[in-house]
Amino acid sequence: MEVIKVSGSSRTSAVAGAIAGVFREFQRAEVQAIGAGAVNQAVKAIILARSYLAEDGYKIAFVPRFTDVQIEDKVRTAIKFVVIECDHEEISEEPATPDDTPAAEA
Amino acid sequence: MEVIKVSGSSRTSAVAGAIAGVFREFQRAEVQAIGAGAVNQAVKAIILARSYLAEDGYKIAFVPRFTDVQIEDKVRTAIKFVVIECDHEEISEEPATPDDTPAAEA
Repeated sequence: MEVIKVSGSSRTSAVAGAIAGVFREFQRAEVQAIGAGAVNQAVKAIILARSYLAEDGYKIAFVPRFTDVQIEDKVRTAIKFVVIECDHEEISEEPATPDDTPAAEA
Repeated sequence: MEVIKVSGSSRTSAVAGAIAGVFREFQRAEVQAIGAGAVNQAVKAIILARSYLAEDGYKIAFVPRFTDVQIEDKVRTAIKFVVIECDHEEISEEPATPDDTPAAEA
């Protein structure tokens, strides 16, 4: 299973599609990000992937970890998000699509 | 249950302590962040909180959502991380402390 690498300029919908695709195949996915911009894109992609996978009946959550990666002889600390299935009532309450995001109060 | 609000300048250890404290009381916690810097701090705090709570025997994962918040008459999109308990083998394999983070290969 390949780790999905996200940068600060990654498109969230493309990353979300990749997460959903890997998850459907392996019932697990790993997403790696280095730096605040990349972590932010990764989290947004996971939110989108959740709605894609909810349509297939999967309830997912994720577990973040630190992991060291070597890039051009330098060691950098990345964050790895492990996407797992988790049958918790909290997830069942989730909106199925991003359009269901509650509107702000007027 | 109060939502734990994180900014880009929040100390991760302080936020992690707050998450662990709320989770111990309610078996649930909510962390809210607006912007890439804040989301990054929130994720790092959750990694730390996971190790704190693992010492108490809790296995946690989290579910991210978009949520709209109103700040000084403007609506902004925040990310809310809902911290839940999730008994998944992936979590059992987690290191109990950040010191167990695997070192990079030489």
